[in-house]
Amino acid sequence: MAAVLIREATEGDCGEVMRMIRELAEFEKLLDQVRINEEVLKTDGFGENSFYHCLVAEIPPDHGDALGSTVVGYGFYYFIYSTWTGRNVYLEDVYVMPKYRGQGIGSKIVKKVAEVALEKGCSQFRLAVLDWNKSAMDFYKSKGAKDLTVAEGWHFFRFDNEAMRELVKK
Amino acid sequence: MAAVLIREATEGDCGEVMRMIRELAEFEKLLDQVRINEEVLKTDGFGENSFYHCLVAEIPPDHGDALGSTVVGYGFYYFIYSTWTGRNVYLEDVYVMPKYRGQGIGSKIVKKVAEVALEKGCSQFRLAVLDWNKSAMDFYKSKGAKDLTVAEGWHFFRFDNEAMRELVKK
Repeated sequence: MAAVLIREATEGDCGEVMRMIRELAEFEKLLDQVRINEEVLKTDGFGENSFYHCLVAEIPPDHGDALGSTVVGYGFYYFIYSTWTGRNVYLEDVYVMPKYRGQGIGSKIVKKVAEVALEKGCSQFRLAVLDWNKSAMDFYKSKGAKDLTVAEGWHFFRFDNEAMRELVKK
Repeated sequence: MAAVLIREATEGDCGEVMRMIRELAEFEKLLDQVRINEEVLKTDGFGENSFYHCLVAEIPPDHGDALGSTVVGYGFYYFIYSTWTGRNVYLEDVYVMPKYRGQGIGSKIVKKVAEVALEKGCSQFRLAVLDWNKSAMDFYKSKGAKDLTVAEGWHFFRFDNEAMRELVKK
């Protein structure tokens, strides 16, 4: 197994991160919902204000794939705020390219996010998982996360752009 | 019906907001999960950095309750970041005191959040609802929000403090 480095993403990683965001959305069968691109990712993460944080998993150059890519996974998170527990972390995405799975890279990314959360005084970190993605469900449960949709009955709701536009007209 | 003003919360509202946060948690049968207090709310919302945004619903003084309170509801939100759609809004809580319900105050708060979201160029706003809270489920659906737990299978997961501490030890 190649040594894997989990490090903060730089602006130069945005192209590779965007490629993996699309790969993950494709796996989740929701690729048509991806509207951002590399430039947006650069501006929003490395411009005047930073709206997110991103970790990347990097392997040594001699273990890269045929295209020479050495960035093989990412973790995407930001800080949220609970009226019960204050500042917390939300893990938006974790992704590892298929051929690099089974080496504990996803675990390392999740662990790093927990380290950051604890360093920043957060008492929770939250995420969302698709219920048909059994391996992801099992993965997070095995790490100690609780399925709050099952345990407490929380459902995700979303207003899309059109729904918001209708709402403000009323 | 008294005229209701939806305005941004000030530092001076934190005591009233904290009181209502506890009322809402009690209604949700999860009061034991409330760990923050008025001071934390002041520091995190009105200190050097602002980690959340809060709207309050205010009624004229002559319509206040016996204790003289004129702040009768709140909406608590922050900005999040989707790898699919970029900057979005998350509505953490909406609450209206029981005796002021049925006057459209909750709707006004939700509408204001949608206005802010659109102003800031967000294409979505997300929230979570408990499945046994039928009136809340119906309320958001009637406003045009989609239940993504039902439609796409999203489940909420959370690592609590202890789970995070175990995770970083591994």
